[in-house]
Amino acid sequence: MNVTIIGLGLIGGSLALSLRHHGLAHRLVGVEASEPHARRALELGLVDEIEADLATAVRRADLIVVAVPMDAMVAVLPPVLDAVAAHQVVIDVGSTKQALLTAVAQHPNRGRFVAVHPMAGTEHSGPEAAINGLFEGKTVVLCDTANSDADAVRVVEQLFHALPMRLLYLDGAAHDLHTAYVSHISHISSFALALTVLEKEKEEQRIFDLASGGFESTVRLAKSSPATWVPIFRQNRLNVLDVLDEHLYQLQHLRDLLAREDYAGLTEQIQLANHIGKILP
Amino acid sequence: MNVTIIGLGLIGGSLALSLRHHGLAHRLVGVEASEPHARRALELGLVDEIEADLATAVRRADLIVVAVPMDAMVAVLPPVLDAVAAHQVVIDVGSTKQALLTAVAQHPNRGRFVAVHPMAGTEHSGPEAAINGLFEGKTVVLCDTANSDADAVRVVEQLFHALPMRLLYLDGAAHDLHTAYVSHISHISSFALALTVLEKEKEEQRIFDLASGGFESTVRLAKSSPATWVPIFRQNRLNVLDVLDEHLYQLQHLRDLLAREDYAGLTEQIQLANHIGKILP
Repeated sequence: MNVTIIGLGLIGGSLALSLRHHGLAHRLVGVEASEPHARRALELGLVDEIEADLATAVRRADLIVVAVPMDAMVAVLPPVLDAVAAHQVVIDVGSTKQALLTAVAQHPNRGRFVAVHPMAGTEHSGPEAAINGLFEGKTVVLCDTANSDADAVRVVEQLFHALPMRLLYLDGAAHDLHTAYVSHISHISSFALALTVLEKEKEEQRIFDLASGGFESTVRLAKSSPATWVPIFRQNRLNVLDVLDEHLYQLQHLRDLLAREDYAGLTEQIQLANHIGKILP
Repeated sequence: MNVTIIGLGLIGGSLALSLRHHGLAHRLVGVEASEPHARRALELGLVDEIEADLATAVRRADLIVVAVPMDAMVAVLPPVLDAVAAHQVVIDVGSTKQALLTAVAQHPNRGRFVAVHPMAGTEHSGPEAAINGLFEGKTVVLCDTANSDADAVRVVEQLFHALPMRLLYLDGAAHDLHTAYVSHISHISSFALALTVLEKEKEEQRIFDLASGGFESTVRLAKSSPATWVPIFRQNRLNVLDVLDEHLYQLQHLRDLLAREDYAGLTEQIQLANHIGKILP
C-alpha cells in the first residue's frame, strides 16, 4: 500500500514507523508545512520523500492519513477529500471529532473518509517524538462509520487490527464526551498543577531536588504543546468546561474537608478515588 | 550493623531490601502491628525475624528505622527513644516533619534521632509493595540535623550515601513547606481527578477502553492509601491548604480563559506550564 501522511509530528511520524514496521506501507510520502520538520522526518526515515503539493501527494496514495493539529485538520481535510478518487481511503487521527465530522458532512467524497482516534500519545511533539510501537495494544476509536463507505471502513479496520490495536466504535458526539472525561481533563489538571508549583515554588532547584516519581508522573502532561491542545480544548469546549467544573467541585470538596478537619470525610473520599485502581490496575 | 525496622510497608520494606542488597544490614528485625503483614514480610525475606516487644526490638539494633504512617509515628517515636542507649541511632522516614520534631523536641535522647525523608515511593502499600532499588539515585532530606548528635548524623549520612542517595539538608519547617508544593499537592490533584472521572464517566468500561498512558500517569497516585495520606495532610494542613488554594485559582483561571474563548491567554498559560519540562526534562 502507498501511504501519504500529512503532518509528520508525534502521531503522524509514529504511525509511519508502525506501518513500515508491520510491512503495511510500501512507499511513504510525507506532507509537512514546517521545512525543518520535513527535513528531520526524512533524516529519521519516517517517510521516503516529501511532496510539496497536497493534491499530488493525495493522488499518489492508496491511504491518506491527516495528522495535523485540530485547527489545521478542519482546514486540510476538505481539500484532501476534493482530490481523492473512489479507490482511495482517507483517515484523520485527531483528538476531537464533532467539528471535523461537521466540516465534511456534505462533502461528495465523505464516504472515502473514516474518522479515527488512536488513544495513544506522549507529552512530546514533532518528528523527533515519533516512536515505533506507540500504538501497539492500545485502543483506536472509529467514529460514525455508518457515514463512511463499507470498503473504506474495512481497509481501516484491517490496518489497525494489524498493528495490533483494539477497535472501539462510537458516534462523534459520544467520542468527544468520553475523551473530555478520560483524556482532555487530565491535561488541564496537569497544566494547572505545573502552574501551581511554578507559582508557589520560587526555588526551581527545590522542584528538581524534591520531585519524586509521583510528582513527575502527575506533571508530565504539562509539557504538552499548546499548538496541539488549545485547538482540542476549543473544539471540545463545552464538554471540557463541564468536566472541568466537576473537577473544580471535587477539589473544592477535598479542600473544605481538610479546612474543617473532617478526616473521616477525607478518608472516605480517598477510598472512593482508590476505586480507579480497580478499573486501571 | 543490626537494624530494626518498625513498620514493614512500602517504605520500611523497601529500605530493608536496599540495606540487605548493599550489605549494610547483617541482621534485620521487624516490628509490625498487622499480623498478616508481619507474616508476609517474613515470607518475602524483608526481615530475618519479627519481634513483638518494641523495647526488646529497639535494644537489639544499632540502627532503628521507624516507618509507620505519620499519625502512628508521633506516638511510636517517643517510646523508641525511651529505650535507646548512647551508641544507637534512630531515624524516621516520614513525609512530614514539624509535628514529629515537636513531639520529641524535649526528649532526653533527642540527639540519637535523625529526621529523614527519602523522596521516593509508589502508589502501593504493605510489604508486598516493597521494591529493591526504590531509593537509588533519589534525594533524601535530612531535617534539623543541628539537634541530632554529630556521630548519629554521620552514621545516617554514610548509610544513605551508600544506597546511593543525594543528601539535602532542610529545617523541618522548610521541609514541610516544599514537600507540600512538590509532593502533597500532586496527590490531592490526582485524588480529585479520579473522583471527577468516576463521577462523570458512569460507564467504567469506557474509562478502561479510552485510558491512554497520559491519563494513567495523572491518575496513578489516586490509588494511594488514605492510611498513609490522611495523616500527612493532617500534619501539614496549613501548607497543603495554601498550595491547594493556589491550585484552585490556577484551574479556575484556565476555566475562565476557555469559557470566554481567550485562546491567546490559554496558549500563554500552557507555555508557562511547559516550563516545568525545563526543570524536569
